[in-house]
Amino acid sequence: MPQLHQVEALTFDVFGTVVDWRTSVTSEVAAVASARKVQGNWHSFADEWRRGYRDGMDLVNKGKKPWRTVDVIHREKLDELLPKYGLGNLNEDQRRQLNLVWHRLEPWADAVEGLNRLRRRFVVATLSNGNMRLLTDMAKHAGLPWDCILSSELAGAFKPDPRAYRKAAELLAVPTERVMMTAAHSSDLRAAASTGMRTAFVARPLEYGPNGETEVVPGGTFDVVATDFLDLARKLDC
Amino acid sequence: MPQLHQVEALTFDVFGTVVDWRTSVTSEVAAVASARKVQGNWHSFADEWRRGYRDGMDLVNKGKKPWRTVDVIHREKLDELLPKYGLGNLNEDQRRQLNLVWHRLEPWADAVEGLNRLRRRFVVATLSNGNMRLLTDMAKHAGLPWDCILSSELAGAFKPDPRAYRKAAELLAVPTERVMMTAAHSSDLRAAASTGMRTAFVARPLEYGPNGETEVVPGGTFDVVATDFLDLARKLDC
Repeated sequence: MPQLHQVEALTFDVFGTVVDWRTSVTSEVAAVASARKVQGNWHSFADEWRRGYRDGMDLVNKGKKPWRTVDVIHREKLDELLPKYGLGNLNEDQRRQLNLVWHRLEPWADAVEGLNRLRRRFVVATLSNGNMRLLTDMAKHAGLPWDCILSSELAGAFKPDPRAYRKAAELLAVPTERVMMTAAHSSDLRAAASTGMRTAFVARPLEYGPNGETEVVPGGTFDVVATDFLDLARKLDC
Repeated sequence: MPQLHQVEALTFDVFGTVVDWRTSVTSEVAAVASARKVQGNWHSFADEWRRGYRDGMDLVNKGKKPWRTVDVIHREKLDELLPKYGLGNLNEDQRRQLNLVWHRLEPWADAVEGLNRLRRRFVVATLSNGNMRLLTDMAKHAGLPWDCILSSELAGAFKPDPRAYRKAAELLAVPTERVMMTAAHSSDLRAAASTGMRTAFVARPLEYGPNGETEVVPGGTFDVVATDFLDLARKLDC
């Protein structure tokens, strides 16, 4: 593993890599629907909401929409999905509350302990497309022990735009070569590597549910491949 | 205390307000000097270094120098001070290490417990002119339980430039009125208030040592005046 001894900071993708967005979102939407006696496929709701997030960011990165936070992108998609799923009568306050479910996601079982081990040796930081307040609220909610919270919001460009990774390294005051990006998604890691970052792939086979399509085998050659954050900590001698 | 119930986040000045920079810097410089059998007034060294930081930031805010981080400003002043105090023979690595003393400052005795109480109810964040990596390292060193680290670096303008306060509120995703700036320095609080922020003054009578000039009585009318962070927590019902 060449040059890994130079790594000072680990930056983490969050949605899917640290937290299980699908279970958290599905269960909160199901509870809202149940209180209204509305039936539906709430896993499908969560999956559509998640796709809307990716599409909304792509429009920004392609210059077709001005910069907006993920909170705003989530809300636009939520307003589109609610009537489609029979929940169009939620009022403004209820919509705002439901949109904040992305601030209340639960971590994968190994995440907190793994981060606590890793931060003994490295600076551990988020590098998510989620906005700063979202990531801050999530850390409080889930007890995620970040040393600092970094976001694409600070670059004004979403991952995989290289500016997001470069801004993180700049704020960590190190060359990109001294930062290791950790993610369950190869596209994120390939973009990080293109800026010079080291890379760690952590498989999250249940991100899209037990029958969902996800990456179990990494789509590229990365510096470390781990089964979870505890395995990552072992492989980095933490 | 009008509108204080709307406050969601507390932002903190750090140098002097959270950490006792003077004692930490003096003792580390004294240890470096002692190992070289160089005598001097190391409190005075620390005070001069601190003044150089203020002067260096003013040059940036006035447009006379391009943006640079506090790490860079500290290093420029350090290189000027070392020969003056008989320490001109420190090599590059020793200078780099000594410059990082600002990443290793010790907190005032009430700071960690006070922040832990305050964060039960509020988002607690730094809002310092120190750069992100400096504040991150300091939090790890001193066990400061920030929910997120924010810095003037993210605005590209040092406090008291209003952009620094506005950027913090933007990243916290709230109007400035929902943020309370906490500092031991009235000038910082007056600038925060000019952007709409709420303000809390916390006296730090020993910031410049037992005989140093400091603000014991706040130079302005602020929403809360507290003797330390535990008193602040009590006054904010935490």
